[in-house]
Amino acid sequence: MNELERIQALILESTPVLGREIAYILDSLGRVLACDITAVEDVPCTDISAVDGFAVQCGALEGASKINPVVLKVIGESPAGRPCGATVGRGEAVRIMTGGLVPDGADSVVKKEDAEDRGEVVACVNNPGIGGNIRVRGEALRKGDLVLRAGEVVGAVEVCKLASMRRAHVHVHQKPVVAILSTGDELSDFHEPPSPGKTMCSNLYGMAAQVLETGAVPLLLGMVPDDPEEQKTLLAEGLRADVVITSGGMSRGKYDLVRETLRAMDVEIKFRNIALKPGKAAVFGAINGTLVFGFPGNPSASMISFEQFVKPALLKMMGRRSVSDARESRFSAIDSFRLDLMGCNCHSRASLVPCRKPESGSSP
Amino acid sequence: MNELERIQALILESTPVLGREIAYILDSLGRVLACDITAVEDVPCTDISAVDGFAVQCGALEGASKINPVVLKVIGESPAGRPCGATVGRGEAVRIMTGGLVPDGADSVVKKEDAEDRGEVVACVNNPGIGGNIRVRGEALRKGDLVLRAGEVVGAVEVCKLASMRRAHVHVHQKPVVAILSTGDELSDFHEPPSPGKTMCSNLYGMAAQVLETGAVPLLLGMVPDDPEEQKTLLAEGLRADVVITSGGMSRGKYDLVRETLRAMDVEIKFRNIALKPGKAAVFGAINGTLVFGFPGNPSASMISFEQFVKPALLKMMGRRSVSDARESRFSAIDSFRLDLMGCNCHSRASLVPCRKPESGSSP
Repeated sequence: MNELERIQALILESTPVLGREIAYILDSLGRVLACDITAVEDVPCTDISAVDGFAVQCGALEGASKINPVVLKVIGESPAGRPCGATVGRGEAVRIMTGGLVPDGADSVVKKEDAEDRGEVVACVNNPGIGGNIRVRGEALRKGDLVLRAGEVVGAVEVCKLASMRRAHVHVHQKPVVAILSTGDELSDFHEPPSPGKTMCSNLYGMAAQVLETGAVPLLLGMVPDDPEEQKTLLAEGLRADVVITSGGMSRGKYDLVRETLRAMDVEIKFRNIALKPGKAAVFGAINGTLVFGFPGNPSASMISFEQFVKPALLKMMGRRSVSDARESRFSAIDSFRLDLMGCNCHSRASLVPCRKPESGSSP
Repeated sequence: MNELERIQALILESTPVLGREIAYILDSLGRVLACDITAVEDVPCTDISAVDGFAVQCGALEGASKINPVVLKVIGESPAGRPCGATVGRGEAVRIMTGGLVPDGADSVVKKEDAEDRGEVVACVNNPGIGGNIRVRGEALRKGDLVLRAGEVVGAVEVCKLASMRRAHVHVHQKPVVAILSTGDELSDFHEPPSPGKTMCSNLYGMAAQVLETGAVPLLLGMVPDDPEEQKTLLAEGLRADVVITSGGMSRGKYDLVRETLRAMDVEIKFRNIALKPGKAAVFGAINGTLVFGFPGNPSASMISFEQFVKPALLKMMGRRSVSDARESRFSAIDSFRLDLMGCNCHSRASLVPCRKPESGSSP
C-alpha cells in the first residue's frame, strides 16, 4: 500500500454507509439496492404456451406426419391474457397464442408451422410430445427465489426485473448531500460583473458537476471571503450535509484561513498534509459524522483531489461495494492535461504528490 | 458492412439532430455543446503573482544572495482579490499573495522562501529576474481563443471551463422525448392486482430506464390491449414525441395488431423484418420526423433491440458525433445471460439475427 492508498483507506475508514430510503423504480436507476428482492410468485404463474399454435392432448397425435396428418376439432381460443374456459378432450384442440394459458386437458402445444388451420378443424403434422412448447409454472422462477441481492447496482436490466417482480418502489441507499464552498477574496460568481483581480469560482461548479456525476447531491454554498467569521457561518451550514468540501484557503499564505477556521469549529483533523503540487496541502477531517475536505483553490488540484479522495467516500456512502474501480476508471479523465492552465485561481499544472511533507517544507 | 450495420445505418439516415436549447451550466452535464465557447477576456486578465512573496523591481536585487541579502522597504500588501494602490519604486517591495495583482512598478516576485519578512522591511536572498514568478495577462488564454467546440460532450472538466468563461448558461442539443407503449391483453401494470394469465408490462420500465441511461426523456404511455382503436389513440399521443417505441404485437399471431395499426396511421415503414429470435420481427418507420420502433414483447429482445437500434439514434439526436462507441460499450451489459428467463412475456432467450427473412418464413 503506497502513501496515496493509505490516505484513501484512512478516509474510507471514517466513511459511513448511509441508510436506506424508498425510491420509485425509475428513480432507483444507478443506485444501490438496500434489500434482497425475491420472487413474490412463480414465473410464469401458470403453464403458458411458448409459441403460436394449438393446445392438444398429445396422445391423440401418435404417428402424426405430413403424409398422415391428424385432424382435430378446434373448440376455442386462448390468446395471451384471455384464458379459454374450455377443457381439451382427445380429438380436440384450442387455438393458442404465445403467452396464452394452456387450457385444462391439454398437455402439449403444436406449433402453427406444424398445423394447417382449417377454421373448424386443424390438421397436425407433428407430435411435440408431453410438455412440448409449454412453459410450465415456475419454470423461470419459483416463489421466494432470490432475484436481486442487496448491494447490486440498479441498471436497466435490474429495473426490468424489479418491474417483473411488481416492485414499483424499492429500498436503495441514500444519496449523500455534498456541501461545496469556495473561499477567497479574489473570487466572484456569475451574478457579479467581472473586475480586475477577481476570478470566477469555477471549481465550485466543477466539483458540483463531479458530485452529480458520482450520483450524489451537490449543495452549492457559494463563495466566502477570507474572513474567519463568514467562513464559520457558511461552514456551520455545510456541516448539516454528509460531506463538506472547501476550496482555497489551504496554503500557507497570510490570508489562507480555512484550516484555522476548521480547527476553531472543533473539526477533528485526521489528515492535514496531503501534498499537492504546486505546494498546497489538502486537509481531511470529520465532525459528528460529516466528512470535511479542504482542497487548494487551484481547479486542477481540487478536481483531482475530488476524484482521489471524495469520490470513493461518496461511493461507499451510497452502498457501493467496490469503490476502487470507479476511482480508477475516472481518474484518467480528470487530468492536468485536460484542465491545463484554465482560468481563475488555477496557477499551474497540478499533480498529486502522495507523501507527507512537513508543513514548512518548500514546494518545488 | 454486415446486415445489422446496414439496418443501423438506415435508421441513422432517417434520424435528425435535434435543435438547441439553453441549459443551466450544471444541467448541461452529459449533454452536447451546440456552440463554440470562446474566451470573453484574457486569462489571467491582469498580471498576477504565481507565488506568495514580494513584488519588486528586480533591478534592485542584482547580486542578492544568502550571504548578501538586499533589504527593501515594504510599502503595502496585495492579497488575491484586493489590489494594492501603491507603485513599487526601486528599493521598495509589496507583500503579495498567490493570485494577487502585481502592483505598478514591480516586474518580478521574490518567493516567500527567498525572503526574510521583517515586517517594515524584507531581506531578499535571490533575484528571480524580469517576469519571475509572474503569470502575465493572457498567458493561459487570449480573449477570443476557442475554449470548447460545438459537439463536445460536457463533463465535469468542461463545466469548470464554462464557469471560468463566466457561462452560467450554455446552448446544448435538446433531449429527445421517447414515448413507450406496451401492447397486449395479457399485460398488467403496478396499479392492478396480479391475476392468472396476466403479466407485468416490465419492458415498459426496462426501456424507460434505457432511455434515462442514454440521457433522453422517457414518456410512459403505459399499456394498451390488443385493440386497434385503443392502439391508434395512444400511438397518436406518442407521435407528438421524437421517438415512439412499442413492444408486443409484432409477431404473426392473430392478436398481434401493432404493425397493421402503424400502417393504418400512415407511418412509413422503412424496415419491417429485422429478425429477432425467437422468431419475432421488429419494425422501423417514420412519420413527420418522429421515429417509430416496434419491438417484440419479449423483454430480452426489446431491450437488446433498444441498445442496437434506438440508442444510436438517440445519441445522434442529442448531437453526439460518435454513436458507435456508446453502442458497443453498453451492448455487453444487456445480454441474454443477464436478462435470462425473467418474468412476464419473456418467453425464451433472445438474440439478434441480423438478416432479412421473408415474413412468412418459419422461426427456428
